Amino acid sequence: MASLSDIGVAAGFNVLTAVAFLLAFAFLRLQPINDRVYFPKWYLRGMRDNPIVSGAAVQKFVNLDGRSYLKFLNWMPAALKMPQDELINHAGLDSVVYLRIYITGLKIFVPITVLAFLVLVPVNWTSDTLGHNNVVYSPIDKLSISNVPNGSKRFIAHLSMAYVITFWTCYVLFKEYEIISNMRLRFLASEKRRPDQFTVLVRNIPPDPDESISELVEHFFLVNHPDHYLRHQVVYNANKLADLVEKKKKMQNWLDYYRLKYERNPSERPTTKTGFLGCFGSKVDAIDYYKSEIEKIGKEEAEERKKVMKDPKSVVPAAFVSFRSRWGAAVCAQTQQTSNPTVWLTEWAPEPRDVYWNNLSIPFVSLTVRRLIIAVAFFFLNFFYIIPITLVQSLANLEGIEKALPFLKPLIELPFIKSFIQGFLPGIALKIFLIVLPTILMFMSKFEGLISQSSLERRSASKYYIFLFFNVFLTSVIAGSALEQLKTYLHTSANDIPRIIGDSIPMKATFFITYVMVDGWTGIAGEILRLKPLIFFHLKNLFLVKTEKDREEAMDPGSICFDSTEPRIQLYFLLGLVYAAVTPFLLPFILVFFGFAYVVFRHQIINVYNQQYESAAQFWPSVHGRIITALIVSQLLLLGLMSTNDFEQSTPVLLVLPVLTFWFYKYCKNRFEPAFVRNPLQEAMKKDTLERAREPNFDLKAYLANSYLHPVFKGDEGDDRYSVVDDEGWMEEEVIVPTKRHSRRTTPAQSKHEGSDSLSVPESQR
Amino acid sequence: MASLSDIGVAAGFNVLTAVAFLLAFAFLRLQPINDRVYFPKWYLRGMRDNPIVSGAAVQKFVNLDGRSYLKFLNWMPAALKMPQDELINHAGLDSVVYLRIYITGLKIFVPITVLAFLVLVPVNWTSDTLGHNNVVYSPIDKLSISNVPNGSKRFIAHLSMAYVITFWTCYVLFKEYEIISNMRLRFLASEKRRPDQFTVLVRNIPPDPDESISELVEHFFLVNHPDHYLRHQVVYNANKLADLVEKKKKMQNWLDYYRLKYERNPSERPTTKTGFLGCFGSKVDAIDYYKSEIEKIGKEEAEERKKVMKDPKSVVPAAFVSFRSRWGAAVCAQTQQTSNPTVWLTEWAPEPRDVYWNNLSIPFVSLTVRRLIIAVAFFFLNFFYIIPITLVQSLANLEGIEKALPFLKPLIELPFIKSFIQGFLPGIALKIFLIVLPTILMFMSKFEGLISQSSLERRSASKYYIFLFFNVFLTSVIAGSALEQLKTYLHTSANDIPRIIGDSIPMKATFFITYVMVDGWTGIAGEILRLKPLIFFHLKNLFLVKTEKDREEAMDPGSICFDSTEPRIQLYFLLGLVYAAVTPFLLPFILVFFGFAYVVFRHQIINVYNQQYESAAQFWPSVHGRIITALIVSQLLLLGLMSTNDFEQSTPVLLVLPVLTFWFYKYCKNRFEPAFVRNPLQEAMKKDTLERAREPNFDLKAYLANSYLHPVFKGDEGDDRYSVVDDEGWMEEEVIVPTKRHSRRTTPAQSKHEGSDSLSVPESQR
Repeated sequence: MASLSDIGVAAGFNVLTAVAFLLAFAFLRLQPINDRVYFPKWYLRGMRDNPIVSGAAVQKFVNLDGRSYLKFLNWMPAALKMPQDELINHAGLDSVVYLRIYITGLKIFVPITVLAFLVLVPVNWTSDTLGHNNVVYSPIDKLSISNVPNGSKRFIAHLSMAYVITFWTCYVLFKEYEIISNMRLRFLASEKRRPDQFTVLVRNIPPDPDESISELVEHFFLVNHPDHYLRHQVVYNANKLADLVEKKKKMQNWLDYYRLKYERNPSERPTTKTGFLGCFGSKVDAIDYYKSEIEKIGKEEAEERKKVMKDPKSVVPAAFVSFRSRWGAAVCAQTQQTSNPTVWLTEWAPEPRDVYWNNLSIPFVSLTVRRLIIAVAFFFLNFFYIIPITLVQSLANLEGIEKALPFLKPLIELPFIKSFIQGFLPGIALKIFLIVLPTILMFMSKFEGLISQSSLERRSASKYYIFLFFNVFLTSVIAGSALEQLKTYLHTSANDIPRIIGDSIPMKATFFITYVMVDGWTGIAGEILRLKPLIFFHLKNLFLVKTEKDREEAMDPGSICFDSTEPRIQLYFLLGLVYAAVTPFLLPFILVFFGFAYVVFRHQIINVYNQQYESAAQFWPSVHGRIITALIVSQLLLLGLMSTNDFEQSTPVLLVLPVLTFWFYKYCKNRFEPAFVRNPLQEAMKKDTLERAREPNFDLKAYLANSYLHPVFKGDEGDDRYSVVDDEGWMEEEVIVPTKRHSRRTTPAQSKHEGSDSLSVPESQR
Repeated sequence: MASLSDIGVAAGFNVLTAVAFLLAFAFLRLQPINDRVYFPKWYLRGMRDNPIVSGAAVQKFVNLDGRSYLKFLNWMPAALKMPQDELINHAGLDSVVYLRIYITGLKIFVPITVLAFLVLVPVNWTSDTLGHNNVVYSPIDKLSISNVPNGSKRFIAHLSMAYVITFWTCYVLFKEYEIISNMRLRFLASEKRRPDQFTVLVRNIPPDPDESISELVEHFFLVNHPDHYLRHQVVYNANKLADLVEKKKKMQNWLDYYRLKYERNPSERPTTKTGFLGCFGSKVDAIDYYKSEIEKIGKEEAEERKKVMKDPKSVVPAAFVSFRSRWGAAVCAQTQQTSNPTVWLTEWAPEPRDVYWNNLSIPFVSLTVRRLIIAVAFFFLNFFYIIPITLVQSLANLEGIEKALPFLKPLIELPFIKSFIQGFLPGIALKIFLIVLPTILMFMSKFEGLISQSSLERRSASKYYIFLFFNVFLTSVIAGSALEQLKTYLHTSANDIPRIIGDSIPMKATFFITYVMVDGWTGIAGEILRLKPLIFFHLKNLFLVKTEKDREEAMDPGSICFDSTEPRIQLYFLLGLVYAAVTPFLLPFILVFFGFAYVVFRHQIINVYNQQYESAAQFWPSVHGRIITALIVSQLLLLGLMSTNDFEQSTPVLLVLPVLTFWFYKYCKNRFEPAFVRNPLQEAMKKDTLERAREPNFDLKAYLANSYLHPVFKGDEGDDRYSVVDDEGWMEEEVIVPTKRHSRRTTPAQSKHEGSDSLSVPESQR
């Protein structure tokens, strides 16, 4: 059990580290040479070309203006200055709503903290159980519920606090959901014309012996959406081609590297070896070698490109179908097309840059099988991954180290080192283990067959949250690996599980305080420093960059990484809600996290991150759901804790809370979630009508051309490739595709779509 | 513990009762006087006017043809003769698919029974544990799993049997789902033109200060579905009016009764008393009294009718909106209309006769609150209703009775009476308690706010199933009231619950065998006798019937009562699946039930029942889901049973089954359920195109007029009332409703809909 002074040492250490990081950041960001590391967003938006410095050559790399160093925290007010609307414009709605998660945290916890310190802390402090017991408690525990004697009437304060917390949290969540769904609707309504507004993704197109996929799609939609269908884009299986392009790019990098080397040192022509990693095999001239390699791959690529275009087998049974109006697309996306719900599946097309191309062709049965496999695999990952973590954690406690490495004993016993180990190591050990995890989870989500980056990130995020809940939160609380927990859950009654966990909640407060400081304070300060991108940028700069364009490419703005950052924020919600009625002392630490992280991420979003896609805050329902989960967990744990404290009459009173909270969740789901999933016809119609009035002659067909082409076909080289695709994938307006089939008698024999009379009806239907 | 001879006595008794019922039925149905009780369906379909008997007057009432009595079972082959397509035509798809539940039962259990008797019975029989123990077991147990020694390798047979049962059941369920969804699609495709195909129910129309609901609806759909909107019908809150009509009808019945009485005995004018139930108050001339009463109510009714028509407050914020095509209706029903998902809720309109009018006006928030209230209420009903049942059941065991009423002891000890009590009473006690339940559950479902009879019945059915599961199945197995069970579940680990229940499964086999015989054999035989309708028909005939029309109304064909009969069938599925691997001896009893009930219900559906609505087998997904539930329960219980029998190595092997079964459930849900919920556009388009080709000038608007009028406005009296509604509720084609509002600038200024050119577009959109 860490004492108050341990916490103090840990706090001091973390604050110092954080300040050091901030100072380093303040110093580094002022150096012009790092400008592209710390302000890439502005370069990408074309609002900055070069570091805004004039003067001597040396000033291009180092900032010599002494005064600017004095104001090392002045990025903070700057980050807060940009108004919300401008920020949405600048960084997109996703980023702004992401920041709102922190705001929600502040909104929930500031009043709760104040109230808890006004009510609970005095109640706990003036009780006096701990004095009479022999167990050694830290002063923090005097502030916590452990100090209240069993069965005391004082627990009524905690009960009412639980009610207040529940209602306040639900109130804030409701308001936030309302605000964010309004923001989303306003954002969608104010959006400019975008291809995805008119487009629907059709998957699982059934094979047809008579017609190609492209013909099939056209016929199907001409028949079933005669007034609205405009054109379609088939999807090519270009995975191999994309690999080749990738490989060529890597070779090009090497070529650039050797050329630069040669330029700098013209006396010696660089060589390389042809074998594995350039370490084995025969020695060759590097520049010639990579040139010839690039040529070879280039040829292969051209061939593959041709093959993909010509071979009907490289067309996957999916297509992007565009409509004449947003209304038509909204209708098609929300309706079922045929009586067989496993074919002709339509859904709103993701933004072109949000599409995850590899998964577009997975058939229906395979999708459900994959989901089962991943569910089982994730179950095992969740309950077995823990073994290494617990190993390290058990080492990281003092007795563990002393047993494992007895010769360290004298060193460890030094008071400072002891505090350091206790305050710092458990957190950092966990941290390292958690870094590799998101990649695995993302791989799992990809295997599941989701078709957009944004949905992949959302799915990974929920997996990660479940993982954190069992492997960080519960493991730390009941100090058993997830595997042991699994045994406990199976062998303990439903009644006893919250009791067991609730009972040990108060004792773990100090551990979580250090965790919050390490992960939430120092970690966030580290985030702003961007060490990894900094190093990589300078390495690239040194070895690869020749032109400005190369330098542009060497920038790595990164993005929010919703899949790994959001679940971590959720952990703070969970900790805050669980400890709010138990150990209010933990709350200020969480408040600092929320406030600090808000400022840091606002700065990063303004200056650094470049989101890969825009989902218009589609992730909010899951954020909301997870906070609700945390709330219900906190209620159940309090219930368990109360019943171990001989205050069992509280059970029915507390049992009301999860029921009400769950109902609130259901209500919000019905009330708000559709706004994040479906597309209301009224809004579509409004935009259509407005646009038709403003630009009656707009050529939508030309506008939509190629917008849903696989990115490898969109390279900056060779415009001739476009035309090939155009001829193949898109049916020309005048062309009438004669159906090769005789069974489909309801197909209108001929469909005319004169450009201007865009809503005319095929003759046969008049 | 009942012995084999107890079972024999119970079986004999039940078979005798069943045969007696069947004989009584055979006798009664041949009497012309009962013709309307046993063949009402034919009368309702207009295929029978009078008993098909010619001859003397007495033959109108009694069948004197001796030979017809000899063939007292000949209704059975007759019931089986009608081919399926004819049956669908005759009774609707709902009834036919309802019969398929029994067929599914036979398909699942015939092969399982054969296999179990070939494999498990020998395995169980040749083991010999029970001989060595002192516990008294019945010979039935020698056939059951209890006879296999703990930890024996023989359990492998039961394990493999569990696998076979799972795969076979899933296979049959999959095939059935496929067949039934095809039947549904074929049925829907072949259906004649029906108003609900073109109509969508819109609920939660937001109030508007400027416009009436009718105007609002028209404007909204003219704007958002300009090419498809045809007309709409507002919904009146006619609950009070319906009450008045009901009251008037009752008075009319009394008037008829007294008139008939007076006719038969003209010497004495009948009198009645004006007070409660005609027993108190002053004595008056009955005929005059009821005449004046009817007049009074008639006036009130006319006034109320006028008020409902004129008062805008009696229009509830819901409307039936009809479209020009099925495609338009399918689109509107499946899409979200506005950005606020709590208003303008659209769903496929139920058939006119299926609409539950009282619930059409419940607002969104109220709906979710009601759902919460009912969830909590049902929880309490489920876990507290049991107290009286257990009381009776504990009395119905021998020791209980002997203790409670010691003077009965000598009587009870007679072997025959003993067997009778043990074999018969527990079942019948349960039965009586269960009769009143469906009414309560239906009331709960109505309170929840569902808007169609069919969905009400489906919802009640799932509640009833849950009730039966806890209060009949589990209560009988672990012999504790649901309340005690609740305690057990809370205080026992998740691991031990299936163990506790599974352990007592084999010992309860005999109880369930008697239950099957009482409920499944005798009960079904009682069903065909129709005692209650028989008595009521003759009473009405005696006191109320004057004309043929009255006689028509005195018929009570009844209907299947899906909400109470289906869950009871599910109980047999549950028993069959649970005991298949444990006590195969129970299976033949269940087979007899499925076969016998199939024949009886086929007969009833052909000759008696008159379904109130047609949902085209929409209930199948829940039937499927409940059989899957039973399967998973059986797997978990077997798992528990195995682990108490020291065969714990089976746990992982058996744990695979529920996971796979659940996955199968999810797969089927995705694969088939949409066909039962949504309306594919392709089918709609097909029907539209066909119909447009066949009847290009069909006046759909006239066809749809009044089809969704509240039934009280559809009385056979006063055609003038129709026209009133027509003027009020339906907008005339030529009328242009000038909007009173200025904010809605996107409304097309004027919308023209020329009759023939049905797909023309408003000028403003060209």
